Amino acid sequence: MTTVALDGRGAERGAEAIVAGARAAAEAGIGLRVFGDPERLAALTGVGGIEVVAAQEEITNDQEPVAAVRRTPEASIVLAAADVAEGRSDALASAGPTGATMTAALFALRRMHGVRRPALALQLAVPGADGPPGLLLDVGANTEVRSVDLVQFAYLGAAFSQAVLGVERPRVALLSVGEEAKKGTADVVEAHAELAASNGIDFRGNIEGRDLLGGAADVVVTDGFTGNVALKAIEGTARAVAAAVGAAARSNPIAAIGGLMLRPALGGLRRELDPDTTGGAILLGLRGVAVVGHGSSGPEGIANAIRLAVRAVDQRAVERTAALLERSGATRSAMRDRKEPE
Amino acid sequence: MTTVALDGRGAERGAEAIVAGARAAAEAGIGLRVFGDPERLAALTGVGGIEVVAAQEEITNDQEPVAAVRRTPEASIVLAAADVAEGRSDALASAGPTGATMTAALFALRRMHGVRRPALALQLAVPGADGPPGLLLDVGANTEVRSVDLVQFAYLGAAFSQAVLGVERPRVALLSVGEEAKKGTADVVEAHAELAASNGIDFRGNIEGRDLLGGAADVVVTDGFTGNVALKAIEGTARAVAAAVGAAARSNPIAAIGGLMLRPALGGLRRELDPDTTGGAILLGLRGVAVVGHGSSGPEGIANAIRLAVRAVDQRAVERTAALLERSGATRSAMRDRKEPE
Repeated sequence: MTTVALDGRGAERGAEAIVAGARAAAEAGIGLRVFGDPERLAALTGVGGIEVVAAQEEITNDQEPVAAVRRTPEASIVLAAADVAEGRSDALASAGPTGATMTAALFALRRMHGVRRPALALQLAVPGADGPPGLLLDVGANTEVRSVDLVQFAYLGAAFSQAVLGVERPRVALLSVGEEAKKGTADVVEAHAELAASNGIDFRGNIEGRDLLGGAADVVVTDGFTGNVALKAIEGTARAVAAAVGAAARSNPIAAIGGLMLRPALGGLRRELDPDTTGGAILLGLRGVAVVGHGSSGPEGIANAIRLAVRAVDQRAVERTAALLERSGATRSAMRDRKEPE
Repeated sequence: MTTVALDGRGAERGAEAIVAGARAAAEAGIGLRVFGDPERLAALTGVGGIEVVAAQEEITNDQEPVAAVRRTPEASIVLAAADVAEGRSDALASAGPTGATMTAALFALRRMHGVRRPALALQLAVPGADGPPGLLLDVGANTEVRSVDLVQFAYLGAAFSQAVLGVERPRVALLSVGEEAKKGTADVVEAHAELAASNGIDFRGNIEGRDLLGGAADVVVTDGFTGNVALKAIEGTARAVAAAVGAAARSNPIAAIGGLMLRPALGGLRRELDPDTTGGAILLGLRGVAVVGHGSSGPEGIANAIRLAVRAVDQRAVERTAALLERSGATRSAMRDRKEPE
């Protein structure tokens, strides 16, 4: 049985969402060690496959993550990450603050050999598209990156897409402001040239923001600032358009009847626009699996985050990513460039 | 009568779109000098207020803009920009390639005193929102900027919002990956600190990508790489969601009837999602007015681009922007930092 260490604190929708999500995952045969306040997690006591581990401290969204993780060893997310590092759990999942989760995971699980910076990757739901949604990375782990990082992200994303999402030969693209090889920042242009010359990856060149939802690539690579803004712009736009359709359906009685008749057919769209569906982002480039749920995840989102973590473990995502990186040589040039200690 | 120099070449939807757009603008009492192929623009000959000026060359989207503008003095966009610089027209409008339009405008109209980099600004349509849509800048003029540029963009955007969009006291925000002052790239963090300490601007701090359509700010400032990606991600998402709603309405007979009943109420939404509605982006920070239409503009989009240019001239946008910049001191610190020759 694969066991996930789950942060039992910090979810915006409270311990109730965590309890319900953990129960759903346990029913699917997943083992869980849930770190948090035993009183608030009391409903999990005695549930088969679930163990509640007391964690007295919590890191909140307004704390600086690095300092908070360093000085709060009893925080639920720090204990959960240590549980994975020490081999009691197989993967980490959290619906708490993204920064604290990433930092705790990075400190406890450490970077893969040769990886300069881990990246946060998320599947973008594509309303109405065929095939699996594309993977966007980095969506927020690194606000500033260099070309060598973008090249590594391409390999990290391709390996994950292949191992966990089942895309046989992932098409990889760089996010930029035009399709031409010379469009974009100096780092994007340099990464484009390196990826175009690289082996072991199906590089399709640049795509623009409007193609993010078009199924043009299986893996889209960008820096964590642009990726985070783009991801949230997509979420915000989808929500605004959906709200405008709803408002139109409330604007007069005929439209209201039309809206009711259309509603069942819109079910799939609503599901795709729901952040709960993807279950969160995965931190790639570590020696272990760490999934960061959407902050506003409900039970379904938390259960999906746990399932994603299990899939990554079962598909040996870390080992397969390390093997691809090794074959590609992308870590060798990175090792020459890197400044940070490993 | 305000006269606009219009590039009569390069529109993706051809000379027909330009002819129809120019006619609509002329009917509204706007003077036009249209630069292009007299044969393809023949339908404009004799139309009151319109003069066709022969321009034998065209700069296409696949040419490098700076080199192309320099070596093609007879290109329609170069002649049109010169027409404004030499005072025969009051403003420039184009639905041709964005890079060539920006470069021709920059070379001919030149930067305002103290402005390091002009920025491309665009109103974001907000489905269902009250009040005027927010202005996003830079949406693509500069892929890499420093904090001093972001601070200048804030003043350029605020002045335009006030002068042309009629927002009495524009609320200005920085686009970042979190609301806290320390979130974002080093340049964003620095710009935040400078704007928070600045006078003459109503700075509201950082907003995230999901707030771009939420009416949280009248002016949203970012670099041209992020702004371009965000803008296109918004366009692509709106189109994908609208297409998914359409597909749902075609999925079964009951949904189809519902879709028909809802359709009239959705009219406003469709208009708001249509890039033709805004009529294009305006290049701020120059000593003249230059509007860059959406590449895929139809007649309505081209007419709106022309109207936007006229509004900027009539509202004395350039003079008012220069005055705000002067009062703010934002150009003085920029002058100390700048490296480019004026």
